[in-house]
Amino acid sequence: MDGLKEILQNKFTDNQTVRENHSHGEDGMRGRVADAVVQADCLADVVKTVEYCRDHQLKLTAFGAGTSLEGHVIPLQGGVVLDLSAMNRIIDISAHNMTARIEAGVTRQQLNQALKNQGMFFSVDPGAQATIGGMAATGASGTNSVRYGTIKENVLSMQAVMANGAVIETATGARKTSAGYDMTHLLIGSEGTLAIITELLVRLHPIPEHIMVLSCQFDNVHQAVSLVEDIMKMGMQMARIELVDAEQMRASIAYSDLQEYEAKPTILLEISGSQASVAEQAQMLSELIDEHAGYNQKQATNEQQRRHLWHARHNAFYATRAFYTDPNMPNRQAIATDSCVPHDRLASALLTVRAAIAQTNLPSTMVAHMGDGNFHAQIMVNMDDEAEILSANKLVGTISQIAIDHGGTCTGEHGIGIGKIDYLVKQHPDLIDWM
Amino acid sequence: MDGLKEILQNKFTDNQTVRENHSHGEDGMRGRVADAVVQADCLADVVKTVEYCRDHQLKLTAFGAGTSLEGHVIPLQGGVVLDLSAMNRIIDISAHNMTARIEAGVTRQQLNQALKNQGMFFSVDPGAQATIGGMAATGASGTNSVRYGTIKENVLSMQAVMANGAVIETATGARKTSAGYDMTHLLIGSEGTLAIITELLVRLHPIPEHIMVLSCQFDNVHQAVSLVEDIMKMGMQMARIELVDAEQMRASIAYSDLQEYEAKPTILLEISGSQASVAEQAQMLSELIDEHAGYNQKQATNEQQRRHLWHARHNAFYATRAFYTDPNMPNRQAIATDSCVPHDRLASALLTVRAAIAQTNLPSTMVAHMGDGNFHAQIMVNMDDEAEILSANKLVGTISQIAIDHGGTCTGEHGIGIGKIDYLVKQHPDLIDWM
Repeated sequence: MDGLKEILQNKFTDNQTVRENHSHGEDGMRGRVADAVVQADCLADVVKTVEYCRDHQLKLTAFGAGTSLEGHVIPLQGGVVLDLSAMNRIIDISAHNMTARIEAGVTRQQLNQALKNQGMFFSVDPGAQATIGGMAATGASGTNSVRYGTIKENVLSMQAVMANGAVIETATGARKTSAGYDMTHLLIGSEGTLAIITELLVRLHPIPEHIMVLSCQFDNVHQAVSLVEDIMKMGMQMARIELVDAEQMRASIAYSDLQEYEAKPTILLEISGSQASVAEQAQMLSELIDEHAGYNQKQATNEQQRRHLWHARHNAFYATRAFYTDPNMPNRQAIATDSCVPHDRLASALLTVRAAIAQTNLPSTMVAHMGDGNFHAQIMVNMDDEAEILSANKLVGTISQIAIDHGGTCTGEHGIGIGKIDYLVKQHPDLIDWM
Repeated sequence: MDGLKEILQNKFTDNQTVRENHSHGEDGMRGRVADAVVQADCLADVVKTVEYCRDHQLKLTAFGAGTSLEGHVIPLQGGVVLDLSAMNRIIDISAHNMTARIEAGVTRQQLNQALKNQGMFFSVDPGAQATIGGMAATGASGTNSVRYGTIKENVLSMQAVMANGAVIETATGARKTSAGYDMTHLLIGSEGTLAIITELLVRLHPIPEHIMVLSCQFDNVHQAVSLVEDIMKMGMQMARIELVDAEQMRASIAYSDLQEYEAKPTILLEISGSQASVAEQAQMLSELIDEHAGYNQKQATNEQQRRHLWHARHNAFYATRAFYTDPNMPNRQAIATDSCVPHDRLASALLTVRAAIAQTNLPSTMVAHMGDGNFHAQIMVNMDDEAEILSANKLVGTISQIAIDHGGTCTGEHGIGIGKIDYLVKQHPDLIDWM
């Protein structure tokens, strides 16, 4: 590695702590520790590192904010971890084109901060403080995708460094194109196996004139699911449709200061548009909620109230971890699953997963992006207890299989990483060889 | 070919007329004629044909409705043309999932006919009566994509036959997935070079409660562009934003019975939503049109009026052909160009293209999907006049280069085919080797 150190100078480190910090995500998975870490500051650093690793047959693992939930960033065979988080320049914001050109290390929060007072926002919102390059590499999404699409629909073009060090731009600045293979979508979700993403041209959206979040609670999940089914059938354009189950509410009430709610299944509905249309939709939804025996209805209209709710929702994973912190289990970790199924199978899948969880002693919470049919269980595991780890791994496998059996996918937005490889094969036996 | 005839029986033909009809699209491009045509009726027919062609080293060209505008379907090296238009079964419509499972030969009109009275529609609407399989293969879109996305955003999964005869399904029925490479998008726009698409799972959208089309006319294109810029900046959610230039209006007034309009640049704006929100938006737009010196404002609210307008818009290409029919030029053809540029370069690109056209003697019309920055020139060429063909080919190249120089693409929705190969290379020199 001396040669790499010489080339990258102080951007290269083999410090033990830095290497350890760059060798895992936010899940409980651990593997080998990187032999060295490069903190890239610019495209040239990435190219140099890729070329050095190619010439010296070293493994190379890209690293953003380290928020992976599927072990993507574990350098399974050692080698170099390439940290892109310092490549966080916002290169250009175009109000005219509703786009931003950014380096891969820019986070959603950073970009939206820069867009403040411009009337636009970047919509893709995973719970974690992920980098947007990392979001593209894993095929991420979040609560907004029912209205604004996933990262796939929000990247127009990317600059990337290929395995031989060649720099490519996957498309142009046009909003659509039919020119050749769709290299942009080939790289989105490729998890660092095809290229290192260095820059992105992303779409922005106008902030709606008026936004309202309606929330309500139910005695059981059935009622919540049936409300959402009716909303979808009516064709109302919802900005967000989120389910937080009773267990997650219990954790979030404590973690995120939601005392006005009970620990019951809760639906959060966001609508937006002109003042008149928001009022009209709110009236319709409110009546629909009553029909489905929803109670504790609230309407959050001002930004502070809305932000408080969505902050709580985005922090669900961390709330679960905090709620189940136990001094007797210092090594207790949260594992997040990530199923996505067609709407007509969603209720069945949710209940089947809950039943599978109930067959273990593992505490768990659940949340769902109902508009997409995507749901997560956060399962608490004592990593010092072999039996619990075994039980949790089996449960995660069962949940993946339930998604596949319901005509869906074992990952809606977290990616395959190393955690879901077996289930990728089970889900797409006909595709594996072609991939 | 005797072996193939034996396998496919009466689905195989070497009839001269059939072969000729299956060896070109709707552009003026002609090349070799296929040696044989197979009219596939089911997946097994496709697999058998692919396997036979693989075993006997025969070229294979997929064919849908034959509406290509870039010579995609010309069997450049002869061999077999595989016609999928008889694979036109609608396999399943799910109101719950808002999806339809269809065979590749189903057309947009056929699917929307089947969806009648179900409150849903399939949104991707190229002007031609294309098959949806063909639309996926070329990466098509249309007037609706500013609101509902292109074919890329409207296909969840596809069944396809790979070059070795293997049958794959590119994804699941889930609305989103992060499982492995995005095989769906890899095949969309691959123009038959990677696989033959046999079935598609497409997204449907709820038909909005109320729809209104506002139209207005302008003295010049500048005014029309500036209106659209202001609409986009306001973040109004438009269903369609179409520009029809003065020359195209002249052709369409005659062809599509639009006597209430003048042969002037015309904007068509579609808005939708609840009755209240449509009325609110219409009021805002109407004032905006006045501010931009738009005149001859009309509001089409009933379905018949709206359908008449969109029918005229979709038939723009045919209207141009009909308008410039000349008994002295029996072999006069229309060539359509297909530029797409970022919004901030759209006005400049439109005017530069008009200026390039003006330097020829070729009659031409122009239309634009303004919301996407996508515009077409339809250029009339006498295919019996070598000088005119040369001049037209040069002009098409110039227009492609103008799009690239404006940071855009030489094809927004028609695809590369054989017509744009040189410009694909010019547009993406860094990608060609990877493709």
